[in-house]
Amino acid sequence: MKLSQGVEWGLHCTSLLAQAPADRPIRRDVLAGHYGLPDAYLAKHLQALTRAGVLHALPGPRGGYRLARSPERITVLDVVEAIEGSTSAFVCQEIRQRGTGAVSPDQCSNPCAIRSVMDQADAAWRDSLRGVTVADLVDRLPPGVRERNADLLAAAGG
Amino acid sequence: MKLSQGVEWGLHCTSLLAQAPADRPIRRDVLAGHYGLPDAYLAKHLQALTRAGVLHALPGPRGGYRLARSPERITVLDVVEAIEGSTSAFVCQEIRQRGTGAVSPDQCSNPCAIRSVMDQADAAWRDSLRGVTVADLVDRLPPGVRERNADLLAAAGG
Ligand code: FES
Ligand code: FES
Repeated sequence: MKLSQGVEWGLHCTSLLAQAPADRPIRRDVLAGHYGLPDAYLAKHLQALTRAGVLHALPGPRGGYRLARSPERITVLDVVEAIEGSTSAFVCQEIRQRGTGAVSPDQCSNPCAIRSVMDQADAAWRDSLRGVTVADLVDRLPPGVRERNADLLAAAGG
Repeated sequence: MKLSQGVEWGLHCTSLLAQAPADRPIRRDVLAGHYGLPDAYLAKHLQALTRAGVLHALPGPRGGYRLARSPERITVLDVVEAIEGSTSAFVCQEIRQRGTGAVSPDQCSNPCAIRSVMDQADAAWRDSLRGVTVADLVDRLPPGVRERNADLLAAAGG
């Protein structure tokens, strides 16, 4: 089981947009260049983040991307679910109701214990990601990085 | 991000083996038939569980599979990791060190905060799965299922 590369890209780009001068949209090629990412492939993930309401896409020559709300109100989970979706990584195909050992439908009023355990773990994973915001990620950057990013974004802008 | 079907299959088969008459090996076709699973594809997952030390494979006409230790000592995580591996679902490609925004190596003595958050969530997922054993799964079967499984396995046996 592997998460898409887009998760690393999306979290970095969202954190970077949190460091842009107030409300200044950042062009996609600037985001891609900042992390050395393939522009066309990044586009797909930025679109997913926009559809999910994490980013705002502004059209036109002075357009680009900015956060759709303050970084304190964007969780890591918001970004991860924009890219990977919000359904559990575990898919139950109700195999308990198949084969020679098939359990009757009236014995299946409760979800299978195996499914419950897997769904509980999925919830623990999401809870953990919900507990950290994009603002927290920016706070944890090494000394000096934030200032340098602000300079780079200001220089690249409009 | 999706887990392999083998996770559902492996957890069900492991739970079923915990219900077999003491130390009686169960043939692969019996396991496959019990849940209506494709025999050849199940083989791959049973081999992974054997390699991981969760199951014991006994050769010969009276052979088959049995648990390698008591179901109280096999966690759901043991089964999941046998099938899916134990590395984090998040892969960090150190994009912070790439592109025009590249952070210098001496600013990277600590892991990237994004990687840390993702790895923490992965650990929360594994902790959750480690907290439930195969014995717990059997305890949670609906009334009557366990007795019926024991009968079916006794009838199918050697
Ligand atoms: S039937 Fe799907 S997890 Fe048990
Ligand atoms: S560089 Fe990989 S997660 Fe930050």
